[in-house]
Amino acid sequence: MNFNFEGLFAFTKSIFIKMGCTEEDAQTATEVLLSADLRGVDSHGVARLSGYVRLWEAGRINTKPNIKIVHESPSTAVIDGDGGLGLVVAPFAMKVAIKKAKNAGTGWVSVKNSNHYGIAGHHAMQALKDDMIGMSMTNASPLVSPTFSKERLLGTNPIAVAIPANKQPAFVADMATTTAANGKLEILQRKEEEAPSGWIQDKEGKPTTNPYGVKEGGALLPLGGDREHGSHKGYALGSIVDIFSAVLSGANYGPWVPPFVAFLQPDPNPVGEGIGHFFGAMRVDAFRPADEFKDHMDNWIGRFREAQTTPGNEKVLIPGDPERELEKERIKNGIPLLKPVQDDLRELGKKLEVPFNI
Amino acid sequence: MNFNFEGLFAFTKSIFIKMGCTEEDAQTATEVLLSADLRGVDSHGVARLSGYVRLWEAGRINTKPNIKIVHESPSTAVIDGDGGLGLVVAPFAMKVAIKKAKNAGTGWVSVKNSNHYGIAGHHAMQALKDDMIGMSMTNASPLVSPTFSKERLLGTNPIAVAIPANKQPAFVADMATTTAANGKLEILQRKEEEAPSGWIQDKEGKPTTNPYGVKEGGALLPLGGDREHGSHKGYALGSIVDIFSAVLSGANYGPWVPPFVAFLQPDPNPVGEGIGHFFGAMRVDAFRPADEFKDHMDNWIGRFREAQTTPGNEKVLIPGDPERELEKERIKNGIPLLKPVQDDLRELGKKLEVPFNI
Repeated sequence: MNFNFEGLFAFTKSIFIKMGCTEEDAQTATEVLLSADLRGVDSHGVARLSGYVRLWEAGRINTKPNIKIVHESPSTAVIDGDGGLGLVVAPFAMKVAIKKAKNAGTGWVSVKNSNHYGIAGHHAMQALKDDMIGMSMTNASPLVSPTFSKERLLGTNPIAVAIPANKQPAFVADMATTTAANGKLEILQRKEEEAPSGWIQDKEGKPTTNPYGVKEGGALLPLGGDREHGSHKGYALGSIVDIFSAVLSGANYGPWVPPFVAFLQPDPNPVGEGIGHFFGAMRVDAFRPADEFKDHMDNWIGRFREAQTTPGNEKVLIPGDPERELEKERIKNGIPLLKPVQDDLRELGKKLEVPFNI
Repeated sequence: MNFNFEGLFAFTKSIFIKMGCTEEDAQTATEVLLSADLRGVDSHGVARLSGYVRLWEAGRINTKPNIKIVHESPSTAVIDGDGGLGLVVAPFAMKVAIKKAKNAGTGWVSVKNSNHYGIAGHHAMQALKDDMIGMSMTNASPLVSPTFSKERLLGTNPIAVAIPANKQPAFVADMATTTAANGKLEILQRKEEEAPSGWIQDKEGKPTTNPYGVKEGGALLPLGGDREHGSHKGYALGSIVDIFSAVLSGANYGPWVPPFVAFLQPDPNPVGEGIGHFFGAMRVDAFRPADEFKDHMDNWIGRFREAQTTPGNEKVLIPGDPERELEKERIKNGIPLLKPVQDDLRELGKKLEVPFNI
């Protein structure tokens, strides 16, 4: 069953206002949250709304944050999110990165004391309209085991990079640094299918194809899956995201990152404040004239798109293609929500007295 | 058979001088080249020396380059390598990145008109002594097929990131954005062993375990191996390296990158100049006091190092551990060279009248 975008937007915004967000913050948070639903990253969209509410009820989200720069240089800043919604803190930080880039050529912002920031790609894409390359990454609750580790020490720690083109649509990569994201396991569970090799390990640290492996105390695996297939590279990438997001800013890192779910308590001895993000903006014309760059991006994208394909595949995709096509389709035909998500939103509406009539 | 470091260094430096390099450039090029042999990236060390000589003989390396900044902003620069050895151009560019970072907090340098720059990690590590995070990436001859592509459109395009710590040794990630590097195929060929799944495809674009698959017209596969195991992520990472290194600078990109081997001709219709690199330096104290950061890095590294392991594995490694241990061992016991590499160096010494007496 599909729900229209405007209806979901109005409902979600009302929920954020009920939580105590200002009109402006509620608007921003809703834009970020719903861009995940539009782009097909369903696990990071309205399906998480009640999770944010539970964190707020537990006193772990501050809906009237005083977000501020606490350290800076011409091309860098550290931002204290004051425990605010990541959905509001991240757009603030990305704006600072873009402003720094206007003056210094590039801008790099590390953020502490924040919460889950939604879909990584949305933040990176904010730089595109100013002819900048945008970057966005965040750490997250530990669900991933480094190569050879039985313990979960990293989050799915995504990296997003958005690069402008001219006639071609922008190149937008947005990827968890694991072989597969957690959301894909839920799909397998519903279908009662096994997980492919290299996605997860069980609680003993042995490879498993049981799609409930993570739920039962195992872990997601870094991109690559195992050592022979390069998991040490996925582990290194996830680590870099963790360090840029949290060790540079003063947020919690590794196993100390506070859990998103309200029923799990944060570590009583934190090593920093909240969770961390990292943003970057590079002005294209700090390197070469923007039109020249964008014309060559058109040529790059065009050449890759036209590549001869392997047997059984129709075309080579450019990062961002599938999400952009889905966004077009969903704006037109609405956003499909699973039954449990619908029920959850209806329940939430009842509790906060916002009717779910979409 | 092991060769002592000093002997190999003197021989290599003499070869570069015979090629027309200044004393200073020969010193720099040798330091970079041999750091690959010390750190165990044998395919990027002296094994490549005769390849550089052949490119120079073919008129494709300029050993008296006028390397210069052609565009800049407070935190960025584009450098024209003037067709010089990448082994000389890259250290020049990394110094510019570090200098920019001293003033602006961060420095980002994209390079055109260069050649193969040796081991990525060495360049990134140059930032460590100034309490900076260093980054280095480069594009390379097309040997890699994007997900669903039968054609080779990318190089193995490595990413290196070096992050300083206090008591712990630095975190140094240095990885090709493919499942496995080309050098690993040569090892399998010598051992007459099959390649693991997910490393290569044959010339029809079908997965193969034939270790000669790439030589016979196939391709290396992006990190992940296939779509189900996340190869679209490895493809996106390799693409980002290509775009930062070459589309930002004005070098050749994708399938237009000139081949390293002198017997293959560069594309007669290039889209840029030479090959491209990208370097970054971020001053840690542009984010928070350097000692605070480095103490937390010690804590990060210590926690990961002590993680409980999966069955059959002794310890969790930190990126850079294996290379650092090998470096210690090889400085002490010498550098092992395969018989064909020894013969090649002896031949080269005869040709350029530099005795190979090590």
